[in-house]
Amino acid sequence: MKPRIDASLLPRGFAFSAVACGLKKSGLDLGLIVSETPASAACVFTTNLVKAAPLLTSQAHLRRSAKAMRAIVVNSGNANCATGPAGLVAAQRTASAVAHSIGCAPQQVLVCSTGVIGVPLRAERILRAVPSLTARRFPRPESFSQFTRAIMTTDTRAKFAAESCRIGGKRVRLLGCAKGAGMIHPRMATMLAFVVTDAAASSALLRCALRDAVRKTFNAITVDGDTSTNDTLALFANGASGAVTIRSRGADHRSFLAALESVCQSLALQIVADGEGAHRVVEIEVRGAPSDRDADEVARTIANSPLVKTALAGGDPNWGRILAAAGRSGVRFKSDRVEIRMAGIIMCRNGRAYPFGERAAHRKLLSAHVPVAVDLHAGRGIARVWTCDFTGDYVRINASYRS
Amino acid sequence: MKPRIDASLLPRGFAFSAVACGLKKSGLDLGLIVSETPASAACVFTTNLVKAAPLLTSQAHLRRSAKAMRAIVVNSGNANCATGPAGLVAAQRTASAVAHSIGCAPQQVLVCSTGVIGVPLRAERILRAVPSLTARRFPRPESFSQFTRAIMTTDTRAKFAAESCRIGGKRVRLLGCAKGAGMIHPRMATMLAFVVTDAAASSALLRCALRDAVRKTFNAITVDGDTSTNDTLALFANGASGAVTIRSRGADHRSFLAALESVCQSLALQIVADGEGAHRVVEIEVRGAPSDRDADEVARTIANSPLVKTALAGGDPNWGRILAAAGRSGVRFKSDRVEIRMAGIIMCRNGRAYPFGERAAHRKLLSAHVPVAVDLHAGRGIARVWTCDFTGDYVRINASYRS
Repeated sequence: MKPRIDASLLPRGFAFSAVACGLKKSGLDLGLIVSETPASAACVFTTNLVKAAPLLTSQAHLRRSAKAMRAIVVNSGNANCATGPAGLVAAQRTASAVAHSIGCAPQQVLVCSTGVIGVPLRAERILRAVPSLTARRFPRPESFSQFTRAIMTTDTRAKFAAESCRIGGKRVRLLGCAKGAGMIHPRMATMLAFVVTDAAASSALLRCALRDAVRKTFNAITVDGDTSTNDTLALFANGASGAVTIRSRGADHRSFLAALESVCQSLALQIVADGEGAHRVVEIEVRGAPSDRDADEVARTIANSPLVKTALAGGDPNWGRILAAAGRSGVRFKSDRVEIRMAGIIMCRNGRAYPFGERAAHRKLLSAHVPVAVDLHAGRGIARVWTCDFTGDYVRINASYRS
Repeated sequence: MKPRIDASLLPRGFAFSAVACGLKKSGLDLGLIVSETPASAACVFTTNLVKAAPLLTSQAHLRRSAKAMRAIVVNSGNANCATGPAGLVAAQRTASAVAHSIGCAPQQVLVCSTGVIGVPLRAERILRAVPSLTARRFPRPESFSQFTRAIMTTDTRAKFAAESCRIGGKRVRLLGCAKGAGMIHPRMATMLAFVVTDAAASSALLRCALRDAVRKTFNAITVDGDTSTNDTLALFANGASGAVTIRSRGADHRSFLAALESVCQSLALQIVADGEGAHRVVEIEVRGAPSDRDADEVARTIANSPLVKTALAGGDPNWGRILAAAGRSGVRFKSDRVEIRMAGIIMCRNGRAYPFGERAAHRKLLSAHVPVAVDLHAGRGIARVWTCDFTGDYVRINASYRS
């Protein structure tokens, strides 16, 4: 795949690299991002109680060095989760090897893994590959493109997004990439995603910015309701643009936040679009709920309903399943006030069928992007969630993932 | 299909009937159960906020006549849900027509519907068929068998179970049947199920007995996590056996409860086994949770995980997904103490891989019944939930249900 990222969009001071170290049957499976100078960092990790070893290692490293991180090393092909003390040692040795090779302390390195759970990680394959991995790092679009492919598992395409904005009159760049297609469910930093920027900002400010951006983007998508054990989203800011340090509040802060949210939004939607077996992205907007939180609950219940998602796979205007899902969400509303639109067509008003042309509706529901709007007429709460349809291919992909 | 119910197992004083009234494209779609004398009754209905019209009608009738119910009329092919005031009128007219025809008050008749949501019910087709429906009722196994088929939608087979026990030295019979294959999720009286008995008991006692039995049976199964809008479970006891009235507590009560639970259990497992597209029944037992409630939460989270269910479709011993699902259930435990067995084989101990033969495990996981046992080693809580695997056929069945 040709990188579609222009060299001018690469944040200054970051280099990328990827190699095939033999964890996957074939292809790139070990990737590296290096900030050539120490970067402020913020991360969001999974809320799953079961946390993978690299995630525990990264959390500890971040607590000690959030103001001066240098690198992120990522392997695919093995999640290094449920691997006991040996898994922790493997993650720590990986960080140490990278640190040694680029000349920094181990706690300045984050470690991420993605792949099958419960299989011991062959760390020696990673350790053997680290010297060539670090030697080949370049601040080039091709290297970034290789990195985005090295972190893929069941993903069918690389996912990345770039933005820029002005801070104190100077241009700063943000570049993000992500992997994830299954075991995707909101309420955490979903899957693996990395955003680097040459803006200058404290790690405290980055933490707040990241939390804000995640809430409306990564935490508003779902593929299958399954929350991963390895989800990590990392944001590095190395200040190499030479722009002034972003202070909280003010125009610079707002510009940066908008650019960050735009990158996160783009990555999140790319993940849904590449959801395992997915044919279309479905945007579910719920309004008129008693509160925003209630709206969110209704939207998520609809977004995770297997019956709604399979109907969407077939382009079936089965709005009754949407109403039934809303009804079991636990949120209070009057069912005889509900209005439902699919693909812009009103199908239900006052809680009952509203005449529409089945054929035209079916055609519209086969689009790549299908909006679903539900108005409960029970308040002012609003929420928006993105999901994908549920196809036979999802089952095929997941029925023999380990084989 | 030949009925496998022997005439001696039919509770005395009940007659059954079924006709094709034209709601389905072909086949039986209207069924009737009549108790020739007034029967005590108890029901459990869906907890979905969106409730179908026949359910609202039946609730009202039951409040007025729980001590003297006479009949249950059921149509398939249309759920009569989200059909507005016209839907309520249709349900009431159906009850009245049956009442008139068998000679009782409308509130002595329960009405149930199952099928697509949001399409106006063609009540005139039902009303036209009622005279022949009531005229053809017989206390015969063939008639019961026809009834069990008339209530089917995506079910591939009729579901029924019979039991008997002794009350005060006299034999009483219990006979149940159910329909349901999709939109099946616990925490209510799942789908449509009917149990009739010639035992004598107050409606208050029946209510308690039904609540007890449902908790461990119908409310412990799940097919797809989607709670229906029409779920109804009705229990009629007409005393025609001549046995003494069951009083709460004591040996008679225990015998009756055991027989009722056995019928409910059998019907519930038949529903899971016939889950849309299902190839196998999966019994998930969680022990060692902080409480029974916690165990139940973990078991349900595993049972509804699309990743776990698709792995089970492929006979893939992917225990990591079971661990990940437990981890996102919200229940507190130490992940490095967890033990997981699939089909009797230990695959995870102390939260990490325990060596097992992949091939033998794969073969065992392809059985029609697969036990999954999870021990959290975090307390004494226990729960058991039944689910089915998630196959490409589920998607095919549901991608174009309305077409």
